Amino acid sequence: MNPQPTSHDALEVIPLGGMGEIGKNMFAYRYGDEILVVDGGLAFPEAHQLGIDLIIPKIDYLQENAALIKGWILTHGHEDHIGSLPYIMPRLPRVPMYSAALTLGLLREKLSEFGIKEADTDLREVEIDAQVKIGQHFVVDFFRITHSIPDNMGYVLTTPVGKVVHTGDFKIDRTPTDGKLSQLDRIEKAGDEGVLLLISDSTNAERPGWSISEAEVAENMEELIKAARGRVFITTFASQTHRVQNIIKSSEKLGRRVVMEGRSMLKYAQVSQQLGYMEFKDPLVTSDEVGSMQDSQVLYICTGSQGQPMSVLSRLAFGNHAKIALKRGDTVILSSSPIPGNEEAVNTVINRLYEIGVDVLYPPNQKVHASGHGSREEQLHILNLARPKYFLPWHGEPRHQINHARLAQTATRPPQRTLVAKNGDIVRLTPDDFKVVGTVPAGAVYVDGLGVGDIGDDIIMDRMSMSQEGVLIITAVLHPTPHIELVSRGFIRSNRELENQIRKVALEAVEQGTRDKKRLEDIRDDMYGAVRRFVRKVTGRNPVLIPLLVD
Amino acid sequence: MNPQPTSHDALEVIPLGGMGEIGKNMFAYRYGDEILVVDGGLAFPEAHQLGIDLIIPKIDYLQENAALIKGWILTHGHEDHIGSLPYIMPRLPRVPMYSAALTLGLLREKLSEFGIKEADTDLREVEIDAQVKIGQHFVVDFFRITHSIPDNMGYVLTTPVGKVVHTGDFKIDRTPTDGKLSQLDRIEKAGDEGVLLLISDSTNAERPGWSISEAEVAENMEELIKAARGRVFITTFASQTHRVQNIIKSSEKLGRRVVMEGRSMLKYAQVSQQLGYMEFKDPLVTSDEVGSMQDSQVLYICTGSQGQPMSVLSRLAFGNHAKIALKRGDTVILSSSPIPGNEEAVNTVINRLYEIGVDVLYPPNQKVHASGHGSREEQLHILNLARPKYFLPWHGEPRHQINHARLAQTATRPPQRTLVAKNGDIVRLTPDDFKVVGTVPAGAVYVDGLGVGDIGDDIIMDRMSMSQEGVLIITAVLHPTPHIELVSRGFIRSNRELENQIRKVALEAVEQGTRDKKRLEDIRDDMYGAVRRFVRKVTGRNPVLIPLLVD
Repeated sequence: MNPQPTSHDALEVIPLGGMGEIGKNMFAYRYGDEILVVDGGLAFPEAHQLGIDLIIPKIDYLQENAALIKGWILTHGHEDHIGSLPYIMPRLPRVPMYSAALTLGLLREKLSEFGIKEADTDLREVEIDAQVKIGQHFVVDFFRITHSIPDNMGYVLTTPVGKVVHTGDFKIDRTPTDGKLSQLDRIEKAGDEGVLLLISDSTNAERPGWSISEAEVAENMEELIKAARGRVFITTFASQTHRVQNIIKSSEKLGRRVVMEGRSMLKYAQVSQQLGYMEFKDPLVTSDEVGSMQDSQVLYICTGSQGQPMSVLSRLAFGNHAKIALKRGDTVILSSSPIPGNEEAVNTVINRLYEIGVDVLYPPNQKVHASGHGSREEQLHILNLARPKYFLPWHGEPRHQINHARLAQTATRPPQRTLVAKNGDIVRLTPDDFKVVGTVPAGAVYVDGLGVGDIGDDIIMDRMSMSQEGVLIITAVLHPTPHIELVSRGFIRSNRELENQIRKVALEAVEQGTRDKKRLEDIRDDMYGAVRRFVRKVTGRNPVLIPLLVD
Repeated sequence: MNPQPTSHDALEVIPLGGMGEIGKNMFAYRYGDEILVVDGGLAFPEAHQLGIDLIIPKIDYLQENAALIKGWILTHGHEDHIGSLPYIMPRLPRVPMYSAALTLGLLREKLSEFGIKEADTDLREVEIDAQVKIGQHFVVDFFRITHSIPDNMGYVLTTPVGKVVHTGDFKIDRTPTDGKLSQLDRIEKAGDEGVLLLISDSTNAERPGWSISEAEVAENMEELIKAARGRVFITTFASQTHRVQNIIKSSEKLGRRVVMEGRSMLKYAQVSQQLGYMEFKDPLVTSDEVGSMQDSQVLYICTGSQGQPMSVLSRLAFGNHAKIALKRGDTVILSSSPIPGNEEAVNTVINRLYEIGVDVLYPPNQKVHASGHGSREEQLHILNLARPKYFLPWHGEPRHQINHARLAQTATRPPQRTLVAKNGDIVRLTPDDFKVVGTVPAGAVYVDGLGVGDIGDDIIMDRMSMSQEGVLIITAVLHPTPHIELVSRGFIRSNRELENQIRKVALEAVEQGTRDKKRLEDIRDDMYGAVRRFVRKVTGRNPVLIPLLVD
């Protein structure tokens, strides 16, 4: 379906990521000849997306309409909201990009890693509750809303057709780490004035009640640190800035020096500290300086909460960290929950830690983690404040979007219409209508090694086949005397008899084809077919078969 | 370490599976020149065990000591207790194998699928509380204990050195589906007489409290079935015989005919019904006969609770079932929890079901599943009944075994010693001592296609590499004029320029080697190294590189 021509009585919301998935959040608003872009996040691959490092959104629509882009706003500094920008920004025009200080600080770090010059960007730092006019038709009123990182923003977007409230990622933490409460009055005020559309975070639409405050997690963690006799190791997401801050506070209070281990952990902490979002009295010590300190005087904060193979915690658990070896008496706290798909990796790490004999503490038996996203009561509270005419559940898989949609029907004034949109949908909004009117290209662009977009699903399918059955290469050398050479990887343990049989089957096909004076391609196909049937019959397997003919 | 010579003052417990893992349960008791074997289960591969169909225990120890095996007992009919038998039994002598009717019924079905003749086995059906003497030194007193399948047994083993109580898999269900309570008095009586060793199920050693009864699950399910307007589809483990029975009862009560879909579901139901372990008034209808029935008169029980790609539920969710198409108004109940590692697959199925628009119900928001294994209170109850001198936590990963070991310290009379054993340990037991004195070969034998044991970890590693980066085959043809042919799978999208560059790099290495009159192997190695360095530099990737030289 092609986009219909854009008229001046409608606002279009065009999600390029973050609908039907948790990850690579990005969407565009279009009114007439003006486009406003929101975020540019990345997603991590699922298990079946073999060998992919990360996934960024397809931005063909923005590239085709590059001249219309008037501005870009970023809601906060997490990877699923800014992680694609180093890949995307160079392919789009330099436009004003607005966000709060920490978000831009984290982005600058990222851009400099990619060698992108500040001069090629137009980063504009704004206060957390600033008003920004973008183009002729967009007025953005930012507001603070709590999440697991400081400087997290939602906004009210005023357009010629009406107001849009976008929560951004949020939880409603009533005792936030930095004491800065969500500016929910902004949503309520917009609701009083009339909200045409609410776009709200669906992540935890299946969790009843109200989420746990970071303050409660901090208290529980402090109790556990206090109870520990030896060294303490805590892993959490590096990007959980509030959590990391609380751990540092507790450590200082309990007389433990903090050691940070892991590149991403250090990066977030450095940027946050430089910009005044993280405080600590002691300078952080490095693990080299720990030597002279007693076990009870040190606490490590490290990467590896998802069981990533090269992370600090994994290396500790498998006993191959260059400098640190775990021992009985150590306490390890996993202040995190596994993201779906990572359960097995995390489970393996936990089992290894038990085998070493350290004390291992983790949810749910220990209350040492809280989600950064609000549960159903918080989602309902937002709906009741905004009282939107139309509703777009966002930042969720279908199960989350649909449960959020159903929840909206229980609001004091339910929306007149809710759409469960997909990435690429053109959601057209007028004061009296709200529907999907077309689609733009959208989807996943795979990043693998240095390549962006040079891996497609066909390549992934080949990887999948080889991962299950291996590969068998049959080279038929025709001259001077036809003979067959076999090489395999990941197929089967070396087996002379089977190899001889396969050679025989292949050679027969080749000789028959030669006698029949077939074309080389046909001989190759015959050999392929004969070997494939034979291997399947004898081994019950279907390795990826690669027939080569050398004439 | 080699096993020490076995003397007549000690009993050895030798786990071949089920220690440090959940799956492939199997162990041997040895006293003097007599061996008694318990179970012979299989395990399902973890995600990183690529392409493996299933895993069976290594039985070298039993093969080497085949003449000593006096008997074999089976605790119940689940795959992780009897699933390896068709692979193992043909490699061991024909000895008396004792179990209850349903377990042997399921085993017979399995053996016949593998073409193993009953005459080559010695299956001996016993009552659930029978006494069996095996060899000169083993007396087994079976007892009933509740689990998710009927005819589940634990036993008291009386040996010259003392009594061993083995719970088998268990939960203590106080309202079991068939009304048959656990014979806990047998454990208490053994405790009164003195238990030297308790071997108890560690699966849920991290779950506080007492497990939910199947009766409670049945009530909740019946409410949901009653509330459904259209067709109902329920998935659960086929082997959850009690669950399936309860669903059938509720369906009959609510006027719905039952359709079973999926081979394993039908197999378990047929065997259970034939042997009188499952009752239903209506004959089951097939999905072909459903045509004329109203949606509200039919209920499907189907496979797919773990999101297995070829299962009935997955085919329904992805819209490629040959006969049935889901539609709005249908209700799908997942009466199961994903096994660690299957979360992503189950999540995908759930999302698809939401997208179709059916009502999807699953735990934890719906109480439609209960574990077949007891929680901590039940484990503690068993410890308090048996009052063992020594304790061996079994049927668990290290995290479960170790938490079970710690729990044992809170018993009214804690064991004097607990060992967290590994597969292959020789655990030696005398009236006054309990320790690991050696090891026997133990581990995983991979079954893939028709092959048993012809896949090793080296092959899995190759599969892993190819799954991440693909494979690149470089054939250097030396005569008449040297030239290079390239084939790749799963590497990168076809890219003429890159291919030409690789050819050039490879050809240069070959020509240089030829000029230098190097040996063919060395030329091949040079080409390999040159291409590898080049590809890594240009693409950032390390595909599995296969260099071929045709002279």
